Amino acid sequence: MRMYDLIMKKRNGGSLSKEEIDWMIRSYTDGEIPDYQMSAMTMAIYFQGMTTRETADLTLAMAHSGDMLDLSDIPGIKVDKHSTGGVGDKTSLTLTPMVAACGLKVAKMSGRGLGHTGGTIDKLESFPGFSTGISMDTFKENVRTIGLSIMGQTLNLAPADKKLYALRDVTATVDNMSLIASSIMSKKLAAGADAIVLDVKTGSGAFMKKEEDAVALAKEMVSLGNHAGRKTLAVISDMDQPLGFAVGNILEVQEAIDTLNGKGPADFTELCLTLGSLMLVAGGICADADQGRALCKEAISSGKALQKLGQLVEAQGGDPSYVEDPSKFPKAPIIREVLSEEEGYITHIECDEIGMCSLVMGGGRATKESTIDLRVGLILQKKRGDFVKKGDCLAVLHAADEETFLQAKERFLKALTFGKEEPKAVPFIKQIIEA
Amino acid sequence: MRMYDLIMKKRNGGSLSKEEIDWMIRSYTDGEIPDYQMSAMTMAIYFQGMTTRETADLTLAMAHSGDMLDLSDIPGIKVDKHSTGGVGDKTSLTLTPMVAACGLKVAKMSGRGLGHTGGTIDKLESFPGFSTGISMDTFKENVRTIGLSIMGQTLNLAPADKKLYALRDVTATVDNMSLIASSIMSKKLAAGADAIVLDVKTGSGAFMKKEEDAVALAKEMVSLGNHAGRKTLAVISDMDQPLGFAVGNILEVQEAIDTLNGKGPADFTELCLTLGSLMLVAGGICADADQGRALCKEAISSGKALQKLGQLVEAQGGDPSYVEDPSKFPKAPIIREVLSEEEGYITHIECDEIGMCSLVMGGGRATKESTIDLRVGLILQKKRGDFVKKGDCLAVLHAADEETFLQAKERFLKALTFGKEEPKAVPFIKQIIEA
Repeated sequence: MRMYDLIMKKRNGGSLSKEEIDWMIRSYTDGEIPDYQMSAMTMAIYFQGMTTRETADLTLAMAHSGDMLDLSDIPGIKVDKHSTGGVGDKTSLTLTPMVAACGLKVAKMSGRGLGHTGGTIDKLESFPGFSTGISMDTFKENVRTIGLSIMGQTLNLAPADKKLYALRDVTATVDNMSLIASSIMSKKLAAGADAIVLDVKTGSGAFMKKEEDAVALAKEMVSLGNHAGRKTLAVISDMDQPLGFAVGNILEVQEAIDTLNGKGPADFTELCLTLGSLMLVAGGICADADQGRALCKEAISSGKALQKLGQLVEAQGGDPSYVEDPSKFPKAPIIREVLSEEEGYITHIECDEIGMCSLVMGGGRATKESTIDLRVGLILQKKRGDFVKKGDCLAVLHAADEETFLQAKERFLKALTFGKEEPKAVPFIKQIIEA
Repeated sequence: MRMYDLIMKKRNGGSLSKEEIDWMIRSYTDGEIPDYQMSAMTMAIYFQGMTTRETADLTLAMAHSGDMLDLSDIPGIKVDKHSTGGVGDKTSLTLTPMVAACGLKVAKMSGRGLGHTGGTIDKLESFPGFSTGISMDTFKENVRTIGLSIMGQTLNLAPADKKLYALRDVTATVDNMSLIASSIMSKKLAAGADAIVLDVKTGSGAFMKKEEDAVALAKEMVSLGNHAGRKTLAVISDMDQPLGFAVGNILEVQEAIDTLNGKGPADFTELCLTLGSLMLVAGGICADADQGRALCKEAISSGKALQKLGQLVEAQGGDPSYVEDPSKFPKAPIIREVLSEEEGYITHIECDEIGMCSLVMGGGRATKESTIDLRVGLILQKKRGDFVKKGDCLAVLHAADEETFLQAKERFLKALTFGKEEPKAVPFIKQIIEA
């Protein structure tokens, strides 16, 4: 087989066979196919697309390119969750202890963040002493005993995807539905769960700006997961403004704890309950979503969900007293209000830009090598649809120094659009996609 | 400027500015832009195309990426000639001494061949002692004194094109009109001639199988050349069967000499007279093509054209006695007829396959590192439209051994199609394209 022939075939609109895709992914992972041929291929795929069958074959080939995590020695149905990412997305911190408190076994691989704020791993490391660099044995043991463990991606999961994604990222071939779907799902399949619940975001802070694109991506991923024998469903949720109020690592951890205390923002609480109920059904804990939702609420009101987070933190070497008293977390030196210079309804929030405010203050990584200041970020005081008068507080910024505060403030003010008329309310949970 | 942004722009159907193209070609030549980004770009160009302005900018950027040959110290208008290549194409060997004998100054850079037979350089090296590795001073001096010199591409002409072509060749992005035209013309512009006559082939042995594609390519190149201030014209000629009868290096040299003796095949003679007359007009030697054609015929009948070839061979260290007596060239050990197993008119010759017969016998290069057996090849006895009876001789094969003879024979027989009806005659010179 020659890569040249496969590029030519795809360029001319043909479909690659399973054998061709398997060979291509194996040879690319091994370094036998050079980057310059693979980037020509991904650009050809961008223009010619891939069939559902080709996308499924690509997903499986990438999933099997490295380690395949085997969770079969942990009893019960293991359910994984994945979010396509957005601004203020602290969902895993609240959701996973909540469903674990309901009896679901949660064995989760998480990554560090690249972009506006850190990832789940960065946020968990806000707890002094917390380690995600645990061994596979400890990971599985914790899942067995307390029902929950979160580890960093130390395994060699889907290395083909890692290599291919890095290449797409520098050759303008990221935004193709088949390539995005297979990239996400290959990692999820390798991570070993029996069922997968996807949170696909849409709006100005999401990768998929348009709802129709988010739905198409969700359908593609649900189809890929089910095709691979893993029960998969997806929620389409709003990311046209930040999730909750807090953006920034420690600020988000505190909001996640507030939510486990039953005092979380409405949108974020709703997302956790929706995803949680679906996970409980997929995991065989409940018969239907209504029952699942009731169980999740009970886990919060009883304090069991918060207790589970404390157990997770303690089991991985962290100080659980921060769960009890989140005011112990370190604070940024500058905590200052941003006041409105305009009057009117907030009609639009350029959500990506709110994420950038946190990044410029040091709360996110511009490159893989950047270090994160866990303290910085912002807490919104107003969101879309709110009426604001001149001088009203729009947000509280937490900054490390004067210079980055001013940069973030300027950027923040530009991210809001005001209008005379109240904008139409949009549903927060837009669709649930099954099979 | 970032290559990522340029790829994205082209991918989305935009036009690259002159500044962007200049930066891209300079940075790619310098190794600052990696191959994997450039191959994504060429694939995006394949799908989105380039405007006439972009193609012209790309051509000039590549032409200026290395040395620009300056022929201004040689008096008169220097005219270059380029063929898009085909089977049995020995045109330069006959054409250049013929027009030089008419008073045109011919300073020609030539390459080695990759494919069915060798290039002009390989064919000239059939003359014992002949060297194309001469110095620039010798090259120019020979043009001044005898009016003709041919040297190998030792200069660093259009290195960007060299690098880009090698990349396109392995990433299935060769066949785009703008990229082909700019590749050819960048080298021609760098080679320093004042005027350029192009021989664009079409048919089963040509790169452009369809006449309409050949015409489009010719128009694009003529426009590029004139845009760059070089008088450029193109002839569209038939390559649906081999040019002349001889295919293979020494066999082609002998046929070129026969043609200089006035005893060449009709199609090949016609091509030389057509191209020659256009070159003489472009070079200011004649007022019109009719006058040019008469001058060329006179150069042949008077023996001056043949004499000029002898001068060229001698001036570059070769033995001119082979020009006088071409039977002195070494012969292949096996010279054997291939007889027809069918009866009927030859309705089609799969011309590329005839080239491959020579290649399998050792007459062409499969890779850059291959060595060529200059003796091998074939001489057609029948061409398209000829009526053939069973047992008639179709061709004489010249092979180095029994095994390759048999391989070539089998391939040769499969390349011919026979029919009951005489095929319609097609014009050999199809069009002449000026400005």
